[in-house]
Amino acid sequence: MRMYDIIKKKRDGYRLTDEEIRAFVTGYTAGEIPDYQASALCMAIWYSGMTAEETTALTLAIRDSGETLCLPDLGGLRVDKHSTGGVGDKTSLVVAPIVASLGVKVAKMSGRGLGHTGGTVDKLESFTGLRTDFSPEEFVEMVRKTGLAIVGQSADLAPADKKLYALRDVTATVDSLPLIASSIMGKKLAADDDCIVLDVKCGSGSFMKTYEQSLELATLMVQIGRNAGKRMCALLTDMDSPLGNTVGNSLEVIEAIDTLRGQGPGDLTELSVALAAEMLTLAEKGTREECEVRARQAIRDGTALASLARMVEAQGGNPAWVYDTSLFPRAACCREITAPRGGYIRKTDAEQYGLAALALGAGRNTMQDTIDHTAGLVLHAKTGDRVEAGQPLATLYASDETRFETATSLILAATHIADTAPAPRPLILGRVE
Amino acid sequence: MRMYDIIKKKRDGYRLTDEEIRAFVTGYTAGEIPDYQASALCMAIWYSGMTAEETTALTLAIRDSGETLCLPDLGGLRVDKHSTGGVGDKTSLVVAPIVASLGVKVAKMSGRGLGHTGGTVDKLESFTGLRTDFSPEEFVEMVRKTGLAIVGQSADLAPADKKLYALRDVTATVDSLPLIASSIMGKKLAADDDCIVLDVKCGSGSFMKTYEQSLELATLMVQIGRNAGKRMCALLTDMDSPLGNTVGNSLEVIEAIDTLRGQGPGDLTELSVALAAEMLTLAEKGTREECEVRARQAIRDGTALASLARMVEAQGGNPAWVYDTSLFPRAACCREITAPRGGYIRKTDAEQYGLAALALGAGRNTMQDTIDHTAGLVLHAKTGDRVEAGQPLATLYASDETRFETATSLILAATHIADTAPAPRPLILGRVE
Repeated sequence: MRMYDIIKKKRDGYRLTDEEIRAFVTGYTAGEIPDYQASALCMAIWYSGMTAEETTALTLAIRDSGETLCLPDLGGLRVDKHSTGGVGDKTSLVVAPIVASLGVKVAKMSGRGLGHTGGTVDKLESFTGLRTDFSPEEFVEMVRKTGLAIVGQSADLAPADKKLYALRDVTATVDSLPLIASSIMGKKLAADDDCIVLDVKCGSGSFMKTYEQSLELATLMVQIGRNAGKRMCALLTDMDSPLGNTVGNSLEVIEAIDTLRGQGPGDLTELSVALAAEMLTLAEKGTREECEVRARQAIRDGTALASLARMVEAQGGNPAWVYDTSLFPRAACCREITAPRGGYIRKTDAEQYGLAALALGAGRNTMQDTIDHTAGLVLHAKTGDRVEAGQPLATLYASDETRFETATSLILAATHIADTAPAPRPLILGRVE
Repeated sequence: MRMYDIIKKKRDGYRLTDEEIRAFVTGYTAGEIPDYQASALCMAIWYSGMTAEETTALTLAIRDSGETLCLPDLGGLRVDKHSTGGVGDKTSLVVAPIVASLGVKVAKMSGRGLGHTGGTVDKLESFTGLRTDFSPEEFVEMVRKTGLAIVGQSADLAPADKKLYALRDVTATVDSLPLIASSIMGKKLAADDDCIVLDVKCGSGSFMKTYEQSLELATLMVQIGRNAGKRMCALLTDMDSPLGNTVGNSLEVIEAIDTLRGQGPGDLTELSVALAAEMLTLAEKGTREECEVRARQAIRDGTALASLARMVEAQGGNPAWVYDTSLFPRAACCREITAPRGGYIRKTDAEQYGLAALALGAGRNTMQDTIDHTAGLVLHAKTGDRVEAGQPLATLYASDETRFETATSLILAATHIADTAPAPRPLILGRVE
């Protein structure tokens, strides 16, 4: 089986066999297939696409390219939740404690942020001293004791995905449906959960810009997961505006904590409850309606917050910060941006707000960059809100004043103010199961 | 200008600017752009295509990627002829001496064969001792003295093409119209001729399998050449069957000599005269009809053959071989293939005959292989001929008997015999100027 023939077959629009797909992934991971052939194949896939069967085969080959986690029985079904990535998306920090506090084990492996989207592991590290690099044994022990742990992805997990993603990132082949789906699901399937709830983002701040693309991606990933024997469900949710009112690591952690105390913004609270209810339902904790009621109750009675505090303590952070968020370090400088005119906010473009946070130091341009956990921004008005001229739109936080200029112009350009209110857009756009 | 953006722009179907195309070629030649980005761009070009303007820009960037030949005035216009490559195509060896004998300087740089197609330089080296590696000064001196020289391409000429072609060859991006056209014309334009006649092959033995593809390629190359200030003309010619009756280096040289003596096969003679007439016309030696008469005359009166002999001598070969072809070394073994049944030959598939010659040792699978100048085959019957069962179809020549098996089965499979004669197919299918 020659890589040349595999490229040519896909280029000419034919279906690749499972064996051909596996030969590519195995050979590429082992360094036997050069980057220049892999990038040619990725581009051919970008144009010619892949069937659901091909994408499943690619996903399973990525899953099997390294070690797969094999957790012992920890009692009951294990549930994971994955977001395709957005701006201000801190739902994992809200949802995981809710679900764990209701008796479902959450052994979560998360990624780091890149570009304008953040990563849960980076956010968690806003707790000074909190670790995310544990051995599999330590990971299992934490989940067994506290019901919940969120750790970084092991380098040995799905190494094909790391290598392929790095290549796609520099060859303009990231935004391909089968390549996105297999990348996400390859890693997820290597993590040995029983149930997976997907939060597929849709809009300016996400990979998928339209509802149709998001629906296609969600449907494909649910199908792949089910083909691999997992219980699956996906929500399609809005990412035209940032989720919640904060973008940036410690600012988002504080907002997640506020939400677990019942004082979070409406959109973040609603999405977190909806995702938690889906996770609990898949884990057989009742109907969706029942699970939603229990999720809200876990916020109201403080058990979800206590669950987060236990996790923070087990991972080496100070649990007191969960109960007093003023203990988080703050940025050295801040600046307020005000509305240049009065009117209705027609749009707070998520991607541009993400890029503004990146400019403030909250994110990475390359995986080698370090991030400033205190940097970021707080939105005071979002799409649909009415503002008067001079009223605050956002507050920026950074380690030095020089970072404000780029961020300010990005935000002013990304905030459209007009005389009429925009049509309301629902937060949850669809559901696939 | 980032290579990523260039890839993405082409991928999304947009036109690249001259600056973007030149930045790619320059950066790739210099080793600043990695192979994996170049192969992704080639695949994007394979799918999205290029306009004639983009292809011209790519051609000129390839031309300028290394040294360009700059010949002094040798008196009159210099003419070159280029074939897109076929099986048994020895026309350069016939045409160049005809044209030179009629007073037009021919300073020709030719390539070596790869795969099932042969190269003029390899064929010429069938003359023991004949050299094709001359300095530019020696090259000019030979053309000045004898009116004609055929040498190998300098390594410094269009290095971008060498690097790109090697990459395309292993990433399934060879058969792209703009990439083929820019590769051929980039090299040709680096060679400083005034007039170029293209022989664009069409059929099983060539890149272009259909008339429409060949016409498109011919039109594009003529346009590129004209954009670069050259006098251009292209013939579209049949390559469903091998040209002439021989495939293999010294066998083809002998057939070319026979043709220059007026004893060549009809198809080779007719195509050689037609190409010579086009070259002479571009060089202002008369109308096409007049030039055709003069070309036939140069064969009849022996001046064309004398021109070849002078060239062979100047390049270090023995000119006596031109007058006595029995002096060429012969292969150690030969075998005759006979018709398995009687009937009309419907097809002698050029590509398969080329692969048979390759199996006999006449060609290269990779540029590192050495070739056997005596190996090859002679066809005794071609498309349209009537044969009886047991009548000879072809004679194979090789250095040892073990090579005959593969070649025999290829030829038997490639020779279709049926009860009815095929529709006659003209040799010259079209003309573009």
